[in-house]
Amino acid sequence: MITSSANAKVKQIVQWQSKAKERRQAGVFTTEGFKMFEEAPADDIKEVFLSQDALERAKGNSFIWKKLQQTGYETVSSNVFAKMSDTQSPQGILTVLRQPKYDIENILKKGNPLLLVVEDLQDPGNLGTMFRTGEGAGITGVIMSSDTVDIFNPKVVRATMGSIYRVPFVYAGDLRNAVNDLHKNGIAVYAAHLEGETYYNRLSFRGPTAFLIGNEGKGLRRDTAKLADSYVKIPMEGRVESLNAAVAAALLLYETHRQRHV
Amino acid sequence: MITSSANAKVKQIVQWQSKAKERRQAGVFTTEGFKMFEEAPADDIKEVFLSQDALERAKGNSFIWKKLQQTGYETVSSNVFAKMSDTQSPQGILTVLRQPKYDIENILKKGNPLLLVVEDLQDPGNLGTMFRTGEGAGITGVIMSSDTVDIFNPKVVRATMGSIYRVPFVYAGDLRNAVNDLHKNGIAVYAAHLEGETYYNRLSFRGPTAFLIGNEGKGLRRDTAKLADSYVKIPMEGRVESLNAAVAAALLLYETHRQRHV
Repeated sequence: MITSSANAKVKQIVQWQSKAKERRQAGVFTTEGFKMFEEAPADDIKEVFLSQDALERAKGNSFIWKKLQQTGYETVSSNVFAKMSDTQSPQGILTVLRQPKYDIENILKKGNPLLLVVEDLQDPGNLGTMFRTGEGAGITGVIMSSDTVDIFNPKVVRATMGSIYRVPFVYAGDLRNAVNDLHKNGIAVYAAHLEGETYYNRLSFRGPTAFLIGNEGKGLRRDTAKLADSYVKIPMEGRVESLNAAVAAALLLYETHRQRHV
Repeated sequence: MITSSANAKVKQIVQWQSKAKERRQAGVFTTEGFKMFEEAPADDIKEVFLSQDALERAKGNSFIWKKLQQTGYETVSSNVFAKMSDTQSPQGILTVLRQPKYDIENILKKGNPLLLVVEDLQDPGNLGTMFRTGEGAGITGVIMSSDTVDIFNPKVVRATMGSIYRVPFVYAGDLRNAVNDLHKNGIAVYAAHLEGETYYNRLSFRGPTAFLIGNEGKGLRRDTAKLADSYVKIPMEGRVESLNAAVAAALLLYETHRQRHV
């Protein structure tokens, strides 16, 4: 059992929890909690750390206990676990996983594409929520600009509620090139935009579809928005000028789901 | 100009920023930023504090400058403003307002009711986002259980993006009594529930409608959910078990908007 926070592994985890660069160099990310361990792809799990309390709880769940036998695990004192954890009330289980790598070509060709293209999103909760809602609505992938918050940031990972394991994603070096790839693959590109002329539920999203979502405060860059086939508008009553980015994405994705499942 | 954070007013603001009880006793709340000042109901403004930088900016905006002449304001050094502020990058303008008081009877009778009934919601961003999205979708009010996060918490206020000024709300001592009042007023009550049998877009929300939304982790209490006329389900693909509370509310409210504006 690890009982000192000076332990090299503990220090390493703390680095991975807080620094995107450290995660990238090692090619790993961390997740916390039993649900996140349960849903983690077994092949991608590199290490598991458990507090003693969590170990006792794990023994009471046969699925988790069996999985822990396969992955192996290391126990950590509660104090040290609190240091490793990114949460205020840790569940006592932390999983280190290999960062998945996806290919934009594969993402563009999967099924009937339904994609989110995200530019410069900064709020971890918003990005994580987009993955969670996206999986719920049947999304086939997410393309992000390189200035978007790191998908492996623990706060993003937590907000995905496990969807990070299942929704394919890529960071695009140049988002405009990526949008051009969408066009070449016959995917209709819509920008959620305040200057939109058509309400989102008056368009058909039954064919291959991508939605461009911009930064929380600034929206889409003008030259990115220009690449869209058309602008879509979400109706707003009262004095509301815009919706939260994750809410706007949810409305567009679920409108698509509704149309595809009539 | 206030230049010391030992100033009694500054200490008072810090208390109001961090403590619901202090806000309640004084009957006030605080908002930050130019947009929040601009949209604040003039009659409810009690005090305005500006950093020197912000004062210069304010002079460049005739609407804001005129409003500041009416409300009066006090200048504060940048260092002291940073102490008063709840944000990491303060805009330099903080407004103290009277807490609005709404009557549940009025809320229930306004127009064609579209209400959110929120139980034990804990995340400030979620509650604020529900107000913002709610106003956008044409909501007529929000009823909250007394264990829901304080609507006047600065993080909630910020996430409302101004909707806090315009969407009527009440805290219900007993949420179950409040739901019974909805029934008595002929308002159909739907619970967003994982055990829902009918998809949300197969029901009509054209008449007076209320949606019950539960706690982020635990959902609705069983005895609260039982009071609903029916459970509604949002379809979910993949392995998604539930949606973020603010996203679920957004989908239900915008489905209602869609139906009422066909």
